[in-house]
Amino acid sequence: MGRLTGGDPSLLRRINSTVVLHALRAADAPTLTDLVQVTGLSRPTVEGVVEGLIEAGLVAEAAAGEGARRQGRPARRFRFRTEAGHLLGIEIGPHRIAALLSDLSGRVLDSAQRPVAEAAPAEERLERVRAVVADLLRRSGVPRSALRAVGVAGPGIVEADGTVRLSTALPGWTGLRLGERLRRSFRCPVLVENDANAAAVAEHWQGAATGSDDIVFVLAGLSPGAGSLIGGRLHRGFGGAAGEIGALHLLGREATPEKLLSTTGTPLHPLDEAQVAAVFAAAREGAAQAREAVDRFLQRLVHDVAALVLALDPELVVIGGWAAGLDGVLEPLRGELARYCLRPPQVVLSQLGEAAIATGALRLALDHVEGELFAVEGAVTSRQ
Amino acid sequence: MGRLTGGDPSLLRRINSTVVLHALRAADAPTLTDLVQVTGLSRPTVEGVVEGLIEAGLVAEAAAGEGARRQGRPARRFRFRTEAGHLLGIEIGPHRIAALLSDLSGRVLDSAQRPVAEAAPAEERLERVRAVVADLLRRSGVPRSALRAVGVAGPGIVEADGTVRLSTALPGWTGLRLGERLRRSFRCPVLVENDANAAAVAEHWQGAATGSDDIVFVLAGLSPGAGSLIGGRLHRGFGGAAGEIGALHLLGREATPEKLLSTTGTPLHPLDEAQVAAVFAAAREGAAQAREAVDRFLQRLVHDVAALVLALDPELVVIGGWAAGLDGVLEPLRGELARYCLRPPQVVLSQLGEAAIATGALRLALDHVEGELFAVEGAVTSRQ
Repeated sequence: MGRLTGGDPSLLRRINSTVVLHALRAADAPTLTDLVQVTGLSRPTVEGVVEGLIEAGLVAEAAAGEGARRQGRPARRFRFRTEAGHLLGIEIGPHRIAALLSDLSGRVLDSAQRPVAEAAPAEERLERVRAVVADLLRRSGVPRSALRAVGVAGPGIVEADGTVRLSTALPGWTGLRLGERLRRSFRCPVLVENDANAAAVAEHWQGAATGSDDIVFVLAGLSPGAGSLIGGRLHRGFGGAAGEIGALHLLGREATPEKLLSTTGTPLHPLDEAQVAAVFAAAREGAAQAREAVDRFLQRLVHDVAALVLALDPELVVIGGWAAGLDGVLEPLRGELARYCLRPPQVVLSQLGEAAIATGALRLALDHVEGELFAVEGAVTSRQ
Repeated sequence: MGRLTGGDPSLLRRINSTVVLHALRAADAPTLTDLVQVTGLSRPTVEGVVEGLIEAGLVAEAAAGEGARRQGRPARRFRFRTEAGHLLGIEIGPHRIAALLSDLSGRVLDSAQRPVAEAAPAEERLERVRAVVADLLRRSGVPRSALRAVGVAGPGIVEADGTVRLSTALPGWTGLRLGERLRRSFRCPVLVENDANAAAVAEHWQGAATGSDDIVFVLAGLSPGAGSLIGGRLHRGFGGAAGEIGALHLLGREATPEKLLSTTGTPLHPLDEAQVAAVFAAAREGAAQAREAVDRFLQRLVHDVAALVLALDPELVVIGGWAAGLDGVLEPLRGELARYCLRPPQVVLSQLGEAAIATGALRLALDHVEGELFAVEGAVTSRQ
């Protein structure tokens, strides 16, 4: 076996386990014969892998009636135990904490959320996260020990170890060892990600971008951020700062979005969504000053999105964040991008809306667990 | 064998051939025993692969004296025949055609170049390309039939099939089926790439970016372009238009670089390098208008580079193109990026200078041939 992979038999075992596990999850209660046929592996190999997965609690014999039946003595059938573990996806936002609970297939079982004050210090915000999670687990009857991975997403540049390198949106957040802090509350891995990056992953998983592997997700607001997938993979950048295009307006001393969207000359507060909505509403009703303000804001958004599009050349741009909920954002964006980009991408609105960030966090937890599941089987098949 | 890879034995053969070929190229005239040791493959497998490579003309027995000797009857030693084929890397620029000829290891054997008029129509430019190549082959005594692949790089957005989607720099270039046209002159594959993309590949191969896999190469000039590598791989974008950041100045009706660098109010010609050099020289001598013009130009360049850096977050930015040859480009760029980027990258000048584009084209040809070599061995090892 070693000679075929340059002396790494564990790689082959992982490949075999991965293949069998994928087949088990994709099929409806397959038999060993089904698995042999689908995977192209030998029967002894499949038997070994399935046996190991049963011992690990990840696979069970399917009860009678599950799957199709045949004549004569029925062959044993198997299913992946999606209930063998649980996952959390958590959004830590300026105004709220939201969490999703899923099984090992990523199917959402329950959710919870609580508001949090924009000015809340870091400790208070972390306490709110713990409270939302405790609520959610209690209500759904899932013990904390059943959690296999937790994904967390919020604003800011996040280092690989889960430290927040910079976040201007949340008080006391810059420098916070968020991953390390949250790992104290869980016995499972905690993955921390930038909110726009998580949302990009979510839209690709089950939102507006399921049909494309080359996308940019724009978390449009007064301080825009973006996440991008290249070839289906999240592009974090060398230091986790890819897509932080909001800083572009600092160049050439251009006005900030907060100034652009002001009708009074006094900049809006970066997170004051109600005030922003009021300006957009006034513009719809024809107020001249409001319309000018909205035009300035859109021009700014077009500029930011164009910079991303010119740099990355995605197939699809998904507009999310609160600006996506306002009327009249999409059409001007499409028109302007068509004028200025050599190859304008499709532009669509987020399908997941407010759920995008927590859903992306959940998907990142699921990615981690799937990686773990496949790695874990080395011990199982070493008997071969 | 099939059960280990889900029924794809050809994959294993390719892996084995790749491993042996890499080992042959890396070592100094290795014996079969050396190859068995380095690769972890069995002796019969190594023998089969080497035999096939000899039949294909890619490997030869090393002559006596090549490699280290041992006591007793000397074991057979082998070497990769870098002379078994040749490659071309061609730059098609606004002012010149340049070409590099290499062996199968990518070592440059000879080069040639000729000027071409900026206003030359497409047919004349293509004719000049053919003339440069004919010269180079004649002079070096390499028959056209020995060419294994040709890489070509020039300005514009290039489709996957080698068609130029858009190029404003070369007359008649937009819509040109460049790959198809050049394939008539060669019996080997012709790869067409954007010039900035090729230069990025070149700097990563043997220039200023050999130490980083996440880079942006800026072909700085009045109409800037950029190429980027992400995780060591060229990022072309969904439609081949990634890095075409020059269009960003169209947004918000900002002035073009040609206007910014003018001291008279009349925009400079986009390709007039002498005129640009004169403005930079005047600025160095303290002429107020020229200094202001240079400041405006640098501000523009900073803005374009910042947009790329914010979108992609590279580890390293390499400044190339003719602007890289002018004094005082690097320091202001570093200073401004440090002010505006959340995580400023390193900024360095191109090491390959004028050779970057043709060198990158050559590397792309080499990449193609290496892929071909490894795929070709399927037939060789099927006897096993």
